[in-house]
Amino acid sequence: MNTDWLAQPCAALNETTRAAALARQGHLTKPPGSLGQLEALAVQLAAMQGVERPAVEHAAIAIFAGDHGIAVENVSAFPQAVTGEMVKNFARGGAAISVLAKALGARLEVVNLGTVNDPGEWPNVVRAVIAPSTSNFAAGPAMTGAQLAQALQAGRDSVLRAREHGAQIFIGGEMGIANTTSASAIACALLHESPQLLAGPGTGLDSKGVAHKAVVIQRALELHRANLAQPLDVLRCVGGFEIAALAGAYLAAAQNGMPVLVDGFISSVAALVAVRFNPCVRDWMLFAHTSAEPGHQRVLAALDAQPLLQLGMRLGEGSGAATAVPLLRLACALHNNMATFAEAGVSDKL
Amino acid sequence: MNTDWLAQPCAALNETTRAAALARQGHLTKPPGSLGQLEALAVQLAAMQGVERPAVEHAAIAIFAGDHGIAVENVSAFPQAVTGEMVKNFARGGAAISVLAKALGARLEVVNLGTVNDPGEWPNVVRAVIAPSTSNFAAGPAMTGAQLAQALQAGRDSVLRAREHGAQIFIGGEMGIANTTSASAIACALLHESPQLLAGPGTGLDSKGVAHKAVVIQRALELHRANLAQPLDVLRCVGGFEIAALAGAYLAAAQNGMPVLVDGFISSVAALVAVRFNPCVRDWMLFAHTSAEPGHQRVLAALDAQPLLQLGMRLGEGSGAATAVPLLRLACALHNNMATFAEAGVSDKL
Repeated sequence: MNTDWLAQPCAALNETTRAAALARQGHLTKPPGSLGQLEALAVQLAAMQGVERPAVEHAAIAIFAGDHGIAVENVSAFPQAVTGEMVKNFARGGAAISVLAKALGARLEVVNLGTVNDPGEWPNVVRAVIAPSTSNFAAGPAMTGAQLAQALQAGRDSVLRAREHGAQIFIGGEMGIANTTSASAIACALLHESPQLLAGPGTGLDSKGVAHKAVVIQRALELHRANLAQPLDVLRCVGGFEIAALAGAYLAAAQNGMPVLVDGFISSVAALVAVRFNPCVRDWMLFAHTSAEPGHQRVLAALDAQPLLQLGMRLGEGSGAATAVPLLRLACALHNNMATFAEAGVSDKL
Repeated sequence: MNTDWLAQPCAALNETTRAAALARQGHLTKPPGSLGQLEALAVQLAAMQGVERPAVEHAAIAIFAGDHGIAVENVSAFPQAVTGEMVKNFARGGAAISVLAKALGARLEVVNLGTVNDPGEWPNVVRAVIAPSTSNFAAGPAMTGAQLAQALQAGRDSVLRAREHGAQIFIGGEMGIANTTSASAIACALLHESPQLLAGPGTGLDSKGVAHKAVVIQRALELHRANLAQPLDVLRCVGGFEIAALAGAYLAAAQNGMPVLVDGFISSVAALVAVRFNPCVRDWMLFAHTSAEPGHQRVLAALDAQPLLQLGMRLGEGSGAATAVPLLRLACALHNNMATFAEAGVSDKL
């Protein structure tokens, strides 16, 4: 598999349209700064899209699904069969992200990277199966180098499809029973934090379950200690197919000038991997929400991210990011359609 | 003017549909609680609307505009002419709330309660002029009892129009140069807090301006000390026409079983007046956002309110509430349209 694309540079933000958008904000009929984060959001999108008046009517959502060998260590509140079952639920329109995508008029594709019970062929499900699951990273590396390359490429392919379909923003989501264990392990390795600090309840572990999860992660980090210096090695040793695909998607989005709206804990960990691999990737990221998963705040701080929403969501699937899309749209509508003081004949500040 | 309506009882929430909605949330294909505040929101709307599956497709926004005599005390960063100028801007579609209402497909009406420079007749502007402005409350009561009754009634009338038009939620907004001074004075009187704590920059005062504003409020509160025991007397002494109209709207909404989405600092102060007048009014309120105006947090705490958004907005006009409408809609879509575990054939928790 060709991994040369990983070394491509990021696209540059457009500083001219950023400056024009910022100037426009200053002329709109409102006290300066009174629309808060919505003002900065419109200006940032103007820089990303290279236009003074940005738009996010066309949103593309990709859900990456994959199973985790680490699930055998009893680290999740739900059985592993759920990953494959949820792929069907996404395809049939019954999952949270399906409902959100429909409400937003967003393109939704599911990328099946490998599940223990294979859901088979479905419309809008891209088969990119690598293996039925990763290996148990408490016993060895989660994946081979070739598997990692395949997963990264699957993320890139999804972004390129989104671009082909005219997407103005890309949202990645994930589904994979036990993937908060993998994400917590990655975050611990990249941030040099303890699993006791970053492991959380995920889909609903009790405190005993969380403590056990932290011990499993601790053991795995000790096992892989010699191989955790580089972000892609961390991903290979303790990651998941869907987390690697998200990281690949974020890298490809930055290379192709596609803004991304990052979802919750797991997506942010994938974002951290991508940013550690190439820091300029950060320029292309907007952050949707702060998850209830306790490790998220630490990861957001490492990314210097101030998310738009704090609703206590912790579902994954890109659901928090989808929920924030209307804020982006309203920020653009205000920026593009409000009258200036001169146009409206309204007196400016004293 | 007949004020008998003020004594009418609130409508009751529907505890049967609340329980049914809560049960439904427990069956949807997601870990329990993983949609955070969106779950509670759907359940609360179910109780308010008396249906298991609520909807807020039809939103009505009313902007109450009025001028303030206290503006002569130099308490605002913008000239008083702006109130009337902005009424025209609302009507022409150039203001933030106009853009938001259009983007949301919401009904927008402006209620002109009296401005120093009269904007005249405009489509979608209801003329309910009481006087060109309130009186300077640093020198005497802001309004007479009859004026207060007129303003309260104007709010009620607006809610009744919204109901006639089939609104499923009511949003009140306000415009009135110097109205954060009035709102801060009301909040100080009701909460027994100092103006130094609750007065803020409003549309953009510097620290010297804020200090002056606090002194003006302090002086006014001393002047009216003997008349600040009852919430409607507080409103009459240091309130504004638009703040009184908002309070009247919230009272009438609760009486008529209409959910309201409360905007920022000034709207929340009006909400506090209404709740102090009749505590059951609180049952019909949802809170949209936490304003950057520093006094807002104290008012929200007094109302035991946890708003949906924290975006640093401080524009008024109902703009924060309008920005939160998509969250209500998505909460309803998720609640109404997600598959249950049984429907989707997805395994439940271990």
